[in-house]
Amino acid sequence: MSKNLTTRSEDYSKWYNELVVKADLAENSGVRGCMVIKPYGYAIWEKMQAELDRKFKETGHENAYFPLFVPKSMFEAEEKNAEGFAKECAIVTHYRLKNDPDKPGKLMVDPNAKLEEELIVRPTSEAIIWSTYKGWVQSYRDLPLLINQWANVVRWEMRTRLFLRTAEFLWQEGHTAHATKDEAIEESEKMMNVYAEFAENFMAIPVVKGLKTETERFAGAEETYCIEALMQDGKALQAGTSHFLGQNFAKAFDVKFANKEGKQEYVWGTSWGVSTRLMGALVMTHSDDKGLVLPPNLAPIQVVIVPIYKTDEQLDEISVEVNVLIAELKKLNVSVKYDNRTTQKPGFKFAEWELKGVPVRIAIGPKDLENGTFEVARRDTLTKEVQSKEGISTYINDLLVQIQEDLFNKALNYRDSHITEVNSFEEFKEVLNDKGGFVSAHWDGTAATEEKIKDLTKATIRCIPLDRLEEAGSCVFTGAESKGRVLFAKAY
Amino acid sequence: MSKNLTTRSEDYSKWYNELVVKADLAENSGVRGCMVIKPYGYAIWEKMQAELDRKFKETGHENAYFPLFVPKSMFEAEEKNAEGFAKECAIVTHYRLKNDPDKPGKLMVDPNAKLEEELIVRPTSEAIIWSTYKGWVQSYRDLPLLINQWANVVRWEMRTRLFLRTAEFLWQEGHTAHATKDEAIEESEKMMNVYAEFAENFMAIPVVKGLKTETERFAGAEETYCIEALMQDGKALQAGTSHFLGQNFAKAFDVKFANKEGKQEYVWGTSWGVSTRLMGALVMTHSDDKGLVLPPNLAPIQVVIVPIYKTDEQLDEISVEVNVLIAELKKLNVSVKYDNRTTQKPGFKFAEWELKGVPVRIAIGPKDLENGTFEVARRDTLTKEVQSKEGISTYINDLLVQIQEDLFNKALNYRDSHITEVNSFEEFKEVLNDKGGFVSAHWDGTAATEEKIKDLTKATIRCIPLDRLEEAGSCVFTGAESKGRVLFAKAY
Repeated sequence: MSKNLTTRSEDYSKWYNELVVKADLAENSGVRGCMVIKPYGYAIWEKMQAELDRKFKETGHENAYFPLFVPKSMFEAEEKNAEGFAKECAIVTHYRLKNDPDKPGKLMVDPNAKLEEELIVRPTSEAIIWSTYKGWVQSYRDLPLLINQWANVVRWEMRTRLFLRTAEFLWQEGHTAHATKDEAIEESEKMMNVYAEFAENFMAIPVVKGLKTETERFAGAEETYCIEALMQDGKALQAGTSHFLGQNFAKAFDVKFANKEGKQEYVWGTSWGVSTRLMGALVMTHSDDKGLVLPPNLAPIQVVIVPIYKTDEQLDEISVEVNVLIAELKKLNVSVKYDNRTTQKPGFKFAEWELKGVPVRIAIGPKDLENGTFEVARRDTLTKEVQSKEGISTYINDLLVQIQEDLFNKALNYRDSHITEVNSFEEFKEVLNDKGGFVSAHWDGTAATEEKIKDLTKATIRCIPLDRLEEAGSCVFTGAESKGRVLFAKAY
Repeated sequence: MSKNLTTRSEDYSKWYNELVVKADLAENSGVRGCMVIKPYGYAIWEKMQAELDRKFKETGHENAYFPLFVPKSMFEAEEKNAEGFAKECAIVTHYRLKNDPDKPGKLMVDPNAKLEEELIVRPTSEAIIWSTYKGWVQSYRDLPLLINQWANVVRWEMRTRLFLRTAEFLWQEGHTAHATKDEAIEESEKMMNVYAEFAENFMAIPVVKGLKTETERFAGAEETYCIEALMQDGKALQAGTSHFLGQNFAKAFDVKFANKEGKQEYVWGTSWGVSTRLMGALVMTHSDDKGLVLPPNLAPIQVVIVPIYKTDEQLDEISVEVNVLIAELKKLNVSVKYDNRTTQKPGFKFAEWELKGVPVRIAIGPKDLENGTFEVARRDTLTKEVQSKEGISTYINDLLVQIQEDLFNKALNYRDSHITEVNSFEEFKEVLNDKGGFVSAHWDGTAATEEKIKDLTKATIRCIPLDRLEEAGSCVFTGAESKGRVLFAKAY
């Protein structure tokens, strides 16, 4: 199977597209720009959801659900937000089909069923949610509102790619309302940190935490915090954002509260989200030319066991040993699959589970039976070793922890060796083209320079790292004053 | 708080609408026919989801996700299905807004951004899913496909009511594909049984299992299995359906497989779903004039503890006892809330938690401190008793089990005493109007009679019960031959 996979060095982009489809994560649908998330891919997404949901609840948030549609007048209330999304939104204009009199068996839009006001399919839910919050907030006692929603959203992207950029995608969007500016800023930072911990500790994806420049900021936000990851081709990927909305939406939707002194004030807001885009980040951070490599925390199947046998008697004997092992592993909450299909050869199975990124493969044949051993293979390093069956389940359990850690460290090494400080625009272009990754450079703080650099190099400012040194320098492009380095990169 | 709640005898419908809003389950949104599910309501829905999802996985199903939109040509492929949903669907015709030149600051649909083909917002996903299955099925080895999706769907209902009938609602939809007719029928029946067990054992809602008549069948199905519940006002509510689709969608989307003999055959299908409508059934089955009554299995908060005190010292002493109890209850996986707000009086708190349906309320005051007791009140029976603190946590845990059981039995008694056999049309009308509930009557099996009865009485055939006696009789309306009784009722 993996023989058919294009390699990363041949064509990284093609490798990605093929892998997503061949590993049964997702595929393009018959609807322009929309994907089908297949069961294996969805099982990974469910693990992400469960862990994120746990973290949100742990930090005091509750889930709720708001409408899919936003009436046009509501959509346009916050002008910057509307402007940012107006160019790429799906619009419902009618509510009925009727039989087409000219084409028997065909339907047509019924012109008599035109909506009085058009409905926008939510590209993000600030408008609908803040219009609701108006009814929920009267006094400081009603604050904070700490609410999250799991939902689908639609952005009419012209050029789409599975998981990375699709017209419809799945995400969660948190929307909170606070009595003070400080509390709202603290919330935005807290959720950025929740995302960073999730990416690093659960997905084994190292990220840089930072602030977006004004150009890259969310439409309608005062400040956008982000986590930025680096893919194996040296391109960056924005893995999550958390916005401090100031009082913009409160003003647009007239959401006020009586403070302790009884005075009316506008509420302060945040919003934050991660999406099925993380699936793309997962694939591109860890996988290799043989297929997916999944961190154990996210693998729907953590261990696959393949019997090697010639006769039915051998298979029976093997199965006795395997069933003992499966019971032990299940006790340790390891998810395990026994691939005892009789229709496929071991080699085929090995390739299939490699393609699907199962972290650990255990093989057992007649020799292992004699010796009381199993062959244990790691997907990430493609190494294998023979292990005694004594204590094997604990060994496997520990190995899964080790693999999770090793994957993170490998990605971290790659990422750290791909942050390059440059001090001239020549160097900037050279590093960007030859090596890729994050280019750390001084910038004069203007949108004009940012745009010129983008036009010339396709690199954008991914973020102003939160932990950057405050150091005087001069802009790599204009030579003007700079207070510290920012990270540029080509990005997904 | 509950003082403001309309009583059931005053106006059942008003009671329901008020209760859903006042208990913080849901509210109408600024979008016609669409609701906002509030955190307390959503927490109940999450519990339903978790239990259903567990049951689906236990029966071999996997989750996946398919697009929100269905292109018109795909939508119309299965004619009966299309016909059934064409009259009430939201249609996307454009993909961009632009600034309105006549109205500064306002947006308008960009006429240059008209879609070549209109997209229907899914009212149900058979079309998009079967168009996908075509690519997934080649051989009998690819079958069965056992897939479920959690999603939002849109049906442009003209008269909407929170949870019961909304333009957008949340649901799960299972879509399976099988090699044989028998297997598909078995699957439809299995999922009807899963729903029935869920309704009865988890939601404490007794249901009748049955088949729909042709008139009431899902558009595009060969047979629709259903579970029907009875609300306290004597009206029935369809709580879940499971459809045997025959080869209808396989033929519409050309989904064939090579059987073991290598011959091409059409695949057999099923689909099945339950929705946020179950929230309405939950409210209307158990609740009373004081507010919600929640079965412990579904209650976001199972136990609330209210301190009764005059001085801060008393509150401190009470809190010491309460914290011990909370720790014990948490060990038993009981979800508990300590309502130690200093801004509200006990009476206010009692009424609030009654309104919100918390199954057990524990109060503790200075006398209880002296005597080593707690006052334990049941929400369902509105009774209370004093219990020693010794063994109290086990007592509470057992009590929750008992309440769950009692709620089911109470609803079962009501339901069973509201299934009335009638043998004349006079009697039919009398029972329907005076007593309500299910009217069990012989019917001649024709759609014409069914329709006439509906026109005259507003009662529809809720189902042909699976466990009905096969007995000869004569139709209550026409006198023609009948093979057994069916259940009529007015319905939600």
